Amino acid sequence: MNDRVLVVNCGSSSLKLAVFDQSDATIATALAERLGADNATASLRYNGEKQALALTPGAGHAAALNDIIAALADQNILKQAPIAVGHRVVHGGEAFKGAARITTDVLQAIEACCNLAPLHNPVNLLGIQATRTLFPDVPQVAVFDTAFHQSLPPHAYLYALPKRFYEDWGVRRYGFHGTSHAFMLEETARRLGKPATETSLISAHLGNGCSITAIRNGASVDTSMGLTPLEGLVMGTRSGDIDPGLFDFLADKDISAERLHRTLNNESGLLGLSGLTNDMRTLIEAADNGHADAQLALDVFCFRLARYIGAMLVSLEQLDALVFTGGIGENSARVRAETLNHLGLLGFAVDDARNQAHGRSSEPLGAIHGPDSRFRIMVIPTDEERVIAREALKHAQ
Amino acid sequence: MNDRVLVVNCGSSSLKLAVFDQSDATIATALAERLGADNATASLRYNGEKQALALTPGAGHAAALNDIIAALADQNILKQAPIAVGHRVVHGGEAFKGAARITTDVLQAIEACCNLAPLHNPVNLLGIQATRTLFPDVPQVAVFDTAFHQSLPPHAYLYALPKRFYEDWGVRRYGFHGTSHAFMLEETARRLGKPATETSLISAHLGNGCSITAIRNGASVDTSMGLTPLEGLVMGTRSGDIDPGLFDFLADKDISAERLHRTLNNESGLLGLSGLTNDMRTLIEAADNGHADAQLALDVFCFRLARYIGAMLVSLEQLDALVFTGGIGENSARVRAETLNHLGLLGFAVDDARNQAHGRSSEPLGAIHGPDSRFRIMVIPTDEERVIAREALKHAQ
Repeated sequence: MNDRVLVVNCGSSSLKLAVFDQSDATIATALAERLGADNATASLRYNGEKQALALTPGAGHAAALNDIIAALADQNILKQAPIAVGHRVVHGGEAFKGAARITTDVLQAIEACCNLAPLHNPVNLLGIQATRTLFPDVPQVAVFDTAFHQSLPPHAYLYALPKRFYEDWGVRRYGFHGTSHAFMLEETARRLGKPATETSLISAHLGNGCSITAIRNGASVDTSMGLTPLEGLVMGTRSGDIDPGLFDFLADKDISAERLHRTLNNESGLLGLSGLTNDMRTLIEAADNGHADAQLALDVFCFRLARYIGAMLVSLEQLDALVFTGGIGENSARVRAETLNHLGLLGFAVDDARNQAHGRSSEPLGAIHGPDSRFRIMVIPTDEERVIAREALKHAQ
Repeated sequence: MNDRVLVVNCGSSSLKLAVFDQSDATIATALAERLGADNATASLRYNGEKQALALTPGAGHAAALNDIIAALADQNILKQAPIAVGHRVVHGGEAFKGAARITTDVLQAIEACCNLAPLHNPVNLLGIQATRTLFPDVPQVAVFDTAFHQSLPPHAYLYALPKRFYEDWGVRRYGFHGTSHAFMLEETARRLGKPATETSLISAHLGNGCSITAIRNGASVDTSMGLTPLEGLVMGTRSGDIDPGLFDFLADKDISAERLHRTLNNESGLLGLSGLTNDMRTLIEAADNGHADAQLALDVFCFRLARYIGAMLVSLEQLDALVFTGGIGENSARVRAETLNHLGLLGFAVDDARNQAHGRSSEPLGAIHGPDSRFRIMVIPTDEERVIAREALKHAQ
């Protein structure tokens, strides 16, 4: 019996595929990188082993997708067409408040959001088209990074700009990582045995990109990323918040807009401050070996995260849990401890042993707070591909 | 006996003078506006009356200063040279951690900060030069908006940018309104009968410009304005925080950098959101008369302020008081109430009657919190010119 669900996640120059079964188990994952370049590579993880995959020379997203699907068929991972395909789509603008079965209308609406995410939505569409060509009869579902945040109230999504910026150009806070934050809600509610609609949490997704969301009674009510995924927390290579006056200040410094874009997106954050790395583990090792700028980068990262936790509390009437997730959120006891150290006056208290164990010593809760903490603190692993697979199954019916 | 202290506050196209006596009483104030334009005007307030002053046609800052000083002499307000002159200087960079008696070295250091505040420091210098020419033998003191914030720790003053931005160009959080925040510290400590060095507060200065500062044991440790006075809270016409990705987003919208500067500084904030006014009283009246966008502007203003109060708490180990000051902070019970309504989970509770009375019903404290509030909340009038006069007297000795 065919029970496979395929997940397609197209980045600007990368492609991730994942194959799940209906019981939510990962069967295989594949990753193609540097698409369009001469040194493009692809690999497959299956049965605990990683193997290289051959790509058509000069492969873009569509060719790479074909190559990988062919390899999955060859190896009997996808013996026949999947029963559903879930596509990660970065920007759903104000058109999508949840995942959507892909139709001609849905494709047009995704295309209409390209101006809001010019680096992402066009490649997301490429992935959808290529998959539809391969599997014309399989239900395809778009799962949006922004959809979960469509519940933001106007006072949280409007910038203090002339209203025509919003009305004419759609300039507002959209928020991202919605798939992960929505999963945190679901999983926190499940672990606490509460209905999601009565669960309030602060979800800190700390991975390559970082964002934090206040969820009140099951609805996103504030989040740190805004119009674009550049705003908010310090990230691996992204600056997060800066003074908007910086652009004026740099006007006489002979930096092109394109150069500045690259600096803010690819050369800032942990990498910019440390001058060393955007990888948190490497950074902490360097800090422990006396690299002062690495320690400083860590300090700024944690302080800015703590500041946002304080800010998110403002949107809540009660808090069931502060939840850490993402590569850094799940694995860096140091980041969690340094962040929580700033939050004493707000009533958060960490338990060192539980934190060192990443919450695994208090399964199934995943709690890391101490007995004096006013609020629960938890570590919950996220898996955005898995959530997309679930959504695809749900909306494919 | 001559006991007059003169305060000079040069804005980009305006000039404010104030005359105090040594007991801290305001003798007279004068204001010249639209300097350099054909319709420049000046007025004098003295003995409770306002009178127009004639200006030399085409007067710039120096000519207007001469005109006003001549009028003050004519009317026996300044019968002879003052005993000290205090100058508001916007930017002291990292060179000034307090007010400074003006010397050639100090002038050079202020000039070196012109690139950090190109609209302000040059006119501040004009005011200083003109006053020195008029009163060559009177001690002159520079009082900096930035100086009080020089105690910020690196994790609070560094942006997550490549370190060369800081090292080569001085890009960091400086903070502004330091004179007012420092006065809030002094006055809060006095009212509570505590030494300033043991007093911790959050100071919300809400006037034309708005900023908020966390003060721990007498030292500024975090603040919302940054490299420039554009960052942070929503203001009358300034946007405060926006997504830095906005600049990229607008790249194909054919808006010049100069136009965008004007939009963010002069057409955003309360004015931009409401499409109506940057005046809080007018805005609230309109909101009460059913103007939906006026209510929205008020909502965004208060929500963003509340968010920053949450963020500032992160830098404190205890909090003696949240203090409101500035035109809006002192006079708008509505803004304080709407802001504090967001802060229930953080433990702030307002007393409606005390708040309506702007804290005057609980003199000398100025408290507006209710019995269940975890933290004290106070309203304290600021008077930046008075603080500058005090600093001038202190440093002129």
